[in-house]
Amino acid sequence: MAVAPGWLAAQACQRVLKRAFSLHKAHSIKDMENTFQLVKNIIPPLTSKKHKGQAGRIGIVGGCQEYTGAPYFAAISALKVGADLSHVFCTREAAPVIKSYSPELIVHPVLDSPDAVHEVEKWLPRLHALVVGPGLGREDALLKNVEGILEASKARAIPVVIDADGLWLIAQQPTLIQGYRKAVLTPNHVEFLRLLEAVLTDPVDSSDRRGAGLRLSQALGNVTVVQKGEQDVISDGEQVSALPSWLPLVRAPSQGSAATKPSRSTAAPPLPPT
Amino acid sequence: MAVAPGWLAAQACQRVLKRAFSLHKAHSIKDMENTFQLVKNIIPPLTSKKHKGQAGRIGIVGGCQEYTGAPYFAAISALKVGADLSHVFCTREAAPVIKSYSPELIVHPVLDSPDAVHEVEKWLPRLHALVVGPGLGREDALLKNVEGILEASKARAIPVVIDADGLWLIAQQPTLIQGYRKAVLTPNHVEFLRLLEAVLTDPVDSSDRRGAGLRLSQALGNVTVVQKGEQDVISDGEQVSALPSWLPLVRAPSQGSAATKPSRSTAAPPLPPT
Repeated sequence: MAVAPGWLAAQACQRVLKRAFSLHKAHSIKDMENTFQLVKNIIPPLTSKKHKGQAGRIGIVGGCQEYTGAPYFAAISALKVGADLSHVFCTREAAPVIKSYSPELIVHPVLDSPDAVHEVEKWLPRLHALVVGPGLGREDALLKNVEGILEASKARAIPVVIDADGLWLIAQQPTLIQGYRKAVLTPNHVEFLRLLEAVLTDPVDSSDRRGAGLRLSQALGNVTVVQKGEQDVISDGEQVSALPSWLPLVRAPSQGSAATKPSRSTAAPPLPPT
Repeated sequence: MAVAPGWLAAQACQRVLKRAFSLHKAHSIKDMENTFQLVKNIIPPLTSKKHKGQAGRIGIVGGCQEYTGAPYFAAISALKVGADLSHVFCTREAAPVIKSYSPELIVHPVLDSPDAVHEVEKWLPRLHALVVGPGLGREDALLKNVEGILEASKARAIPVVIDADGLWLIAQQPTLIQGYRKAVLTPNHVEFLRLLEAVLTDPVDSSDRRGAGLRLSQALGNVTVVQKGEQDVISDGEQVSALPSWLPLVRAPSQGSAATKPSRSTAAPPLPPT
C-alpha cells in the first residue's frame, strides 16, 4: 500500500528531533517545546506591518588578522534567529573575508582605524544591541578602541553582550562595565575563572558554579553573567538559574560560544551536497 | 500497513554505504565497519563534559601564492573527523583566500614574514599535532622558515605529519626529521621514489613496496612512512602493513593526499545555492 507523504514527513521530523536530543538524555521534546515558546516570546512576529530594521538591528565588534569566523557566526546567527540587520565592525584586513562569507552582513572595516570609536559611535543610534568580542584578539590598539566603544554604548544605554576576547578586556579592566546592568557577560569555563580572579578579592569555590556566578555578578554591580557549559548558569546577582543547554553537541569553533551563536548546524554555511 | 521508521533508516543507511563502495568492488561493508571501528577508537567521544579544544587542536603549515586548496582540505578535514580547532599558517597573500573557504578555520598570514618561525612557535604550546606541507610550494625562503618550524616542533615533541612539498624539503635535508619518531611521512609514488633516492645509499627495488618502505623508515631512524596508493603501505621500521584504501575514488588535488584529507566529497566547500 502507499504510505502518505505527510506521514513520512512527520516521521522524518520526529527522527530529526530525536536525533537532536539523542545526546541529551535528560531532555524531552517537552523541554524543547518550552524553549521554543520562550524564544517565540522574545522574537517579534514576522508581519507585513513592519519595515526592515524593526525586528532588530545588531552590531558585532570583532574580527582581526587571525579571526574572522567568530564575528561571522555571531552576526549571521542574529539574522537567523530573526533580526533584520547585522553589522560587523572589524579591522580593515578582516573585512573582505567576513563580507565574503555572506552577502547578508554589513561589514565595516574600521576597528583598527585611528577614529575607530567615532566610526562605530555614529552607528550606535541605529543599533538595538552590541556584541563585543568574537574574534577580537588581544592587540592593545584594538582593545583600546573597544574601551571607547563600550563607553559610548553605555552613554547611550545600549545593551551589550560581551564574549571571548571582550571578556579578556573586562578581566583587565572590570570597571569598564561595573554597575552597567545592560551588560551580559558570556564566559566559558576558562574565561569565567579569569573573571573570578580579576574581580573577587576573597577566594571563591569555582566548583559551586551557582554560588560563584552569583558572587561575580554582585561584585560587578549586577551585570548578568551567563556561564556556558553543560548547563548554562545564569545570574543577575539576585537570582541564579541553571538551564541545560538544548543545543546539539557540535565540535569546532561554534561549540564554545553558544550564547552568541545558536549552533553550527543552524549558522554554518550549507553542507556540501552528498 | 505502517512502515517502521527504523526500517526506513536502515534502508537509507544501506544505500549510502553501497554508493560509497560502488567503485570499490573488492571491498565489503564489513571492511568499512572495521575501519569505522578503528576511527571510532581514535576520536574522543563527543560529550558535553568537554570544553572546546579538548578533542583536538591541529595546525597546518602550508598555503602560498599558487596553492590554497590543499591546506584548506587538510584543515577542514581535521574538523570533519572530530578535532575542535584547526589553524592554518600560510603566506600573507594566501590567507584571505583560505579564510574565505570556511569561517571555521583560524588562518594566520605569517609564513612569509621575517619572524615566521616565532609567529608559528608561539602557537605550538596550544597544538596537539602539526601537518607540514600541503600547498607549501618550493620557494627557498618558505622552506627555510619551515625548517625552523620543524626544529621548534621537535623541541616540543609535537607529532608532525609531513606531506606534499614538506616531503620535498625532507628529500633535500633528511636530517631534519632523522630519528624523530613522532614524524609521519605520507608520500605518494613519486615522492616515495624521491625519498628513497635521497636517503638510501644502496639501490633498492621500489616495486617491492613493503620492503622499500621498511628500509626507508629504518634509514630515517624509525619515522613512520605511509606510502599512499591503491594499497597504503605503512611502516615504522619494525613492522609493515598494507591496507586497501577505503576512500572513494576521486580525481583532482584531494586524491593525492588522502592521509591528511578524508575525501573531497566530505571536505569540499558547499556549492553555491541554486
